[in-house]
Amino acid sequence: MSDRPALSNDPPRQEVASTAARRFTPHGSETFMDVVALEEPLEMRLHGEDAPLTLAVLMRTPGHDRELLLGWLVSEGLLPVEFDLAPDDGNPNVWHLHTPEHSRVAAGARLGVSSSACGVCGTGSIERLAVKAHLPLWTGNPLSPDLILSLPEKLLAAQAGFQATGGLHAAGLFSPAGELLHAFEDVGRHNAVDKVVGRAVQRLPLSNHVLCVSSRAGFEIVQKAVMAGIAVVVTVGAASSLAVETAQTFGVTLCAFTRPDRFTVYSAPERALPGTP
Amino acid sequence: MSDRPALSNDPPRQEVASTAARRFTPHGSETFMDVVALEEPLEMRLHGEDAPLTLAVLMRTPGHDRELLLGWLVSEGLLPVEFDLAPDDGNPNVWHLHTPEHSRVAAGARLGVSSSACGVCGTGSIERLAVKAHLPLWTGNPLSPDLILSLPEKLLAAQAGFQATGGLHAAGLFSPAGELLHAFEDVGRHNAVDKVVGRAVQRLPLSNHVLCVSSRAGFEIVQKAVMAGIAVVVTVGAASSLAVETAQTFGVTLCAFTRPDRFTVYSAPERALPGTP
Repeated sequence: MSDRPALSNDPPRQEVASTAARRFTPHGSETFMDVVALEEPLEMRLHGEDAPLTLAVLMRTPGHDRELLLGWLVSEGLLPVEFDLAPDDGNPNVWHLHTPEHSRVAAGARLGVSSSACGVCGTGSIERLAVKAHLPLWTGNPLSPDLILSLPEKLLAAQAGFQATGGLHAAGLFSPAGELLHAFEDVGRHNAVDKVVGRAVQRLPLSNHVLCVSSRAGFEIVQKAVMAGIAVVVTVGAASSLAVETAQTFGVTLCAFTRPDRFTVYSAPERALPGTP
Repeated sequence: MSDRPALSNDPPRQEVASTAARRFTPHGSETFMDVVALEEPLEMRLHGEDAPLTLAVLMRTPGHDRELLLGWLVSEGLLPVEFDLAPDDGNPNVWHLHTPEHSRVAAGARLGVSSSACGVCGTGSIERLAVKAHLPLWTGNPLSPDLILSLPEKLLAAQAGFQATGGLHAAGLFSPAGELLHAFEDVGRHNAVDKVVGRAVQRLPLSNHVLCVSSRAGFEIVQKAVMAGIAVVVTVGAASSLAVETAQTFGVTLCAFTRPDRFTVYSAPERALPGTP
């Protein structure tokens, strides 16, 4: 396994781009140079005995592709034990995955896009997740509401790209003391979470960690947390019905609408609001 | 073709769900019944001579599945001329597509997830889109800035689900006079656009129409507009680099950060700001 240390601090590649634009305001219109979030496709190819198989094509913000792909493999339950993951010699938007477990990975990837009629529902999605998930684990003390309320602001301080463009989501991994361990930005909120998980891939499962995202919580955000063993998810935006059901099934504490002085908890509230019945 | 009229006004299925939650505020915490956006998976299966092929699995808000699937087929360049699209007898989250063109649709779907190394970049994504796109067409007068500024507010008036949950994106199709023709909500912003296009599938290409979305504009939002022949896209949120490049390539007017008194236009500004050089 030629992987670099998962906790390296590689400088990111450029995550934003400049473009000429025209701004209309009550004072008239003017041209200016604007800064926008960079978006490019990324393809991961699995190599085995047959022709290479495209495992994923992700529209993403470049800069932490290794983290993104490792996290994506974890989220899909496909991360091999032994592997080599490297960028293409000619195209930085193509990465190659070599592993002796290629048959298992290929089969798992094909299974991921197919399903049986009886399983296409929220319950089926949760059941498929249960087959491959780490059990989210929390062995420490409960968190305080004040700690939960503090997380989006700490994450925002790490969102340089968002502050420049207004067009990037962010995800951050926090210790149970509320310390930001690492954070990533991306045009896709799912990608931002995958990057966070991918950076910590050598420490899975991420028991006693908190995931905070700047966006809403859909099923896939909670799925990614569950696959990484994360037991507390805090979001700035709303939670969907299936995100709530998934969090309840796996005992994940799901806090949404997290604002400076309030939040709503949909599942396992004892970890966010100690002493509640 | 057993398709229902594309402009039917079927009552939507339930788009929201109730769930017990606990709210923390400066005044303490309390349990309450909250309303969240409904999220369920939807699978479309293509039937031909071989075993059924899963064309798509979308995490979506139920309620306008026919529109969603038709719009998705348009966005992917896969809509057959003759077809039958119907829900499964037993599972409303599974739809079956029968068409004499099944071989072409299957080949196109397989092509959609694979690509050649030289094509995995922003330029490659735009070039692949150019092969299958309608050319967005605008033959009418330019729009006024005031008309553009008015669209998000008109869309918001149609976002009953968002106002109940805070967790749904919306997309709306407008006439060049700024009249809202139809609007849809979904947990996924891409789905909301697909529903809008799918509702209008019998009137493609949508020349002289404006698409307004409550979210940001990534590549895929502009891609869907281009595939439907829509020449003006107005978003409340930011635009990504690839969204801007795609709009510029196809001559789509792209207005982002649209607020009550201001917006930024990244491409073809003459259609939004008449008289600008």
